[in-house]
Amino acid sequence: MRSIVTIGGGTGQFTLLSGLKKYPVRLTAIVSMADDGGSTGVLRDELGVLPPGDVRQCLIALSESDRLLRELFNYRFDQGGMSGHNFGNLFLSALEKVTGSFEEAVRVASSVLAIRGEVIPVTTKKVSLVCGTGASQSVGEHAIDAGAIDRATLRLEPEAYANPKAVAAIEAADCIVIGPGDLYTSIIPNLLAQGLASAINRTKAPVVYNCNLMNKPGHTDGFGVIDYMNEIERFIGAGRIDFVTYNDRRPDSELLNRYLNAEGRTPVPAPDAIGMERSAAEFYGAGLVDETPIEQKSGDKTPRTYIRHDTDKLAELIIKKCLGGV
Amino acid sequence: MRSIVTIGGGTGQFTLLSGLKKYPVRLTAIVSMADDGGSTGVLRDELGVLPPGDVRQCLIALSESDRLLRELFNYRFDQGGMSGHNFGNLFLSALEKVTGSFEEAVRVASSVLAIRGEVIPVTTKKVSLVCGTGASQSVGEHAIDAGAIDRATLRLEPEAYANPKAVAAIEAADCIVIGPGDLYTSIIPNLLAQGLASAINRTKAPVVYNCNLMNKPGHTDGFGVIDYMNEIERFIGAGRIDFVTYNDRRPDSELLNRYLNAEGRTPVPAPDAIGMERSAAEFYGAGLVDETPIEQKSGDKTPRTYIRHDTDKLAELIIKKCLGGV
Repeated sequence: MRSIVTIGGGTGQFTLLSGLKKYPVRLTAIVSMADDGGSTGVLRDELGVLPPGDVRQCLIALSESDRLLRELFNYRFDQGGMSGHNFGNLFLSALEKVTGSFEEAVRVASSVLAIRGEVIPVTTKKVSLVCGTGASQSVGEHAIDAGAIDRATLRLEPEAYANPKAVAAIEAADCIVIGPGDLYTSIIPNLLAQGLASAINRTKAPVVYNCNLMNKPGHTDGFGVIDYMNEIERFIGAGRIDFVTYNDRRPDSELLNRYLNAEGRTPVPAPDAIGMERSAAEFYGAGLVDETPIEQKSGDKTPRTYIRHDTDKLAELIIKKCLGGV
Repeated sequence: MRSIVTIGGGTGQFTLLSGLKKYPVRLTAIVSMADDGGSTGVLRDELGVLPPGDVRQCLIALSESDRLLRELFNYRFDQGGMSGHNFGNLFLSALEKVTGSFEEAVRVASSVLAIRGEVIPVTTKKVSLVCGTGASQSVGEHAIDAGAIDRATLRLEPEAYANPKAVAAIEAADCIVIGPGDLYTSIIPNLLAQGLASAINRTKAPVVYNCNLMNKPGHTDGFGVIDYMNEIERFIGAGRIDFVTYNDRRPDSELLNRYLNAEGRTPVPAPDAIGMERSAAEFYGAGLVDETPIEQKSGDKTPRTYIRHDTDKLAELIIKKCLGGV
């Protein structure tokens, strides 16, 4: 069975894994550990635990358990002292407290959720994503997410080595899939863990990059597909990305207007012919947007994404074009 | 395999089940649903769920899972917004929210914890334990627990029928074991669910009563073993208890003094010869006290019991004397 390693965090990785899970491949999810927003941020602050949120999403995506258990792990309390907390986050945090080890907590949760594959935190050191210096310094993924970014100084504090299990998974991979996900707050925080980007650079496995559907104000304004690629290749080496998937169908106008008005976000334009010709990568454009509306839920502290990847179309494209089928 | 049904709640039932689990018998725990103290009370108030605490203790006692999962279910958050909440309680309450059914939540939790046997809430109606009338009315197990009791008016509000599964388990039992546990706040709340006491009265299975070790001020001051029996037989019928176990060895003086000073509790005296002669039941006295100290944990809202039954000695006595072995 082919081994696919995914790198990311947040909803993007959940979407990717949910689709890839339907194929007979071995999946390993390497997950960013810089999250500090919402329920995850409160748990970090109050309990001193590692951030559970992104790991939880990957576990749910890979779970083959009873639907009820997956719903339970996604359940968000909307009343009382637990309000805003996600049950899966509490599960991981309580297990980390009981075992004294986040990785052990992930192992037990993986077993309870009967996951197919493996979820590996990119580091088990308590790190914050930081950018800027002096008075203009922003500390924490959540703070950076909400404001503008100083790309050149983006870093983990304290510096951290990549989890040896993540490096080993990359070395053994038949294919490495990066994204979709917020470039600076979900993807690159993985590449900032020392040794991870160089492991990707070293291996011979093809690297797939799934470009985002929408740009993020203050982070990727005006970015095209090749700008995203270039930013990632700053870490893993120029020309290291072999395949790029992108959306080439304009989302529904009403949805686009809602995005623009609410968050100032606009779609990532398709790469132009010259850009693609100059690049060593192969580009696959397709209509990758899932336009099914998602209802905002009470208790949500962050707005839900409405324009998102269609999990099945994305997985099919990766498997067919980049891996040549399974 | 012989089928044993236990009736109780709280720590007493946990102790009993932990011991009986070691024998090749089929165990069914019928659990009081009147608890409203501590973490359980907060969850009832804030989330409108049924009380998870006593059910959780039975699930842990019957669990054959990984030690870690049992520790997780017992884990008590001691910091932040979840402080004082027991993880297992949150698990059951979140599952009740997700499934819309407490019984379904118990079913899923039973599967996650790989329990041997079954845990049945005595009722799935939201009830409160109430006693007294007018200005002297006490509402809630916690309030009644902390004060004096008006035995004659003790009731569930609203009135509730016993869970048909609990009645069916009693009808199919080879042996019914009542207690140990607080007489008026753990044992009798089960017997107040309509149809449960009459089911016990009707069946031919022997009834074992495990008498408490210590009296409870305001509730059972000055009670002897036969007073406890008589109170239970008010519900299940005079002469219905076939076997009684009681402790006949005085606990360590230092422990006794600590109890007396902290809570005003004194040991239940052994029954006298005349009392035993007049009763239809068989009495088995033994040294049943486990004197291993338990440390108070931070986050504990209620004091931990120090003088408690030795799980193994209690189970051995029941199996050997009351069931004639297995």
